[in-house]
Amino acid sequence: MTSTPAASSPDQIVPHLSPSAGFSGSLSADEFKALFRGHPGGVAVITADAGEGPVALTATSVASVSADPPLLIFSVSSLSSSAAVLARAETVVVHLLDAQDLDLARIGATSGIDRFDGTRPWSRLVTGEAVYHDVRAWVRCAIIERMDAGGSTVIAAHALQAQLERDVSPGEAGDALVYHNRAWHRLGEHSRIDS
Amino acid sequence: MTSTPAASSPDQIVPHLSPSAGFSGSLSADEFKALFRGHPGGVAVITADAGEGPVALTATSVASVSADPPLLIFSVSSLSSSAAVLARAETVVVHLLDAQDLDLARIGATSGIDRFDGTRPWSRLVTGEAVYHDVRAWVRCAIIERMDAGGSTVIAAHALQAQLERDVSPGEAGDALVYHNRAWHRLGEHSRIDS
Repeated sequence: MTSTPAASSPDQIVPHLSPSAGFSGSLSADEFKALFRGHPGGVAVITADAGEGPVALTATSVASVSADPPLLIFSVSSLSSSAAVLARAETVVVHLLDAQDLDLARIGATSGIDRFDGTRPWSRLVTGEAVYHDVRAWVRCAIIERMDAGGSTVIAAHALQAQLERDVSPGEAGDALVYHNRAWHRLGEHSRIDS
Repeated sequence: MTSTPAASSPDQIVPHLSPSAGFSGSLSADEFKALFRGHPGGVAVITADAGEGPVALTATSVASVSADPPLLIFSVSSLSSSAAVLARAETVVVHLLDAQDLDLARIGATSGIDRFDGTRPWSRLVTGEAVYHDVRAWVRCAIIERMDAGGSTVIAAHALQAQLERDVSPGEAGDALVYHNRAWHRLGEHSRIDS
């Protein structure tokens, strides 16, 4: 990536000068991807159904934004095969995965496969949503807001109901799953750097 | 957390029944926090200035949502000491941290301290924003959208200019920083679980 020249003095950094610098400037897609390739993320699989059968996708953009009311956000690229369903669905189930769920993370990230062929068992809640079994946790949510953001949609959702299969107690390292630089990682005592 | 009873058959999961089940139901704040305590996140420090001096906060909600145009999102709690400034700022600098930047992550997460006292060197870009030196990467962004979400605001921002000090090449494990269950973790070859 083209980077800003080194600071000429400790008090001032000379910015990258481009033909469209400042507010009218913009990073290229490749520059932006290079920045975020190195930014790790937790892994979720989101299921939704707008009446024509369930879809599922793996997302690393899920974040908690408020506990009271309990709200989360995630984004979906318009290029995703699930985008059209997520544009119309009223509810979603967000499966928050740990390292034991790596197979499901791969299923949701692999294109051209049937993500509900039973390789990973699933069923429907009485409210209708598809939920995969034996994940670390899942949370059923009502979609409350959509915000267009370039080639993606940011979705805000309100948590209605959850199941927590594998909790991590305060102080425990757990068994978390992280995606980083196109690879999967497992957190645990071996990765802690608390002083 | 109160969890859904075990499935009574492989084909149906009996949902948690509460006085306000379904769309009118809602997880409690404690239930929601228990779910997300176990969901890991990459770590960023965001600086902003609305004309009265810079503020900084540590955030684990930063996510890339679109590469073309280059857009990212993050959320800020209204309880944050930086919330008022972020409600008015036109630009932000998002510092994407790795494990070498743990000291800065702690500074942005500690209340009651002067986050710009020079403990971690910083300077101003010619466009005015405060930027910390020697971080893995930073990206200057224009705020393009705000969405109220409970006790927080979701902010979407357009990437204008970036500096990448420590890149991770495809295939490299790098040295990423992750926050999980109130602890810091470092990714590397030791945490990879690719098969």
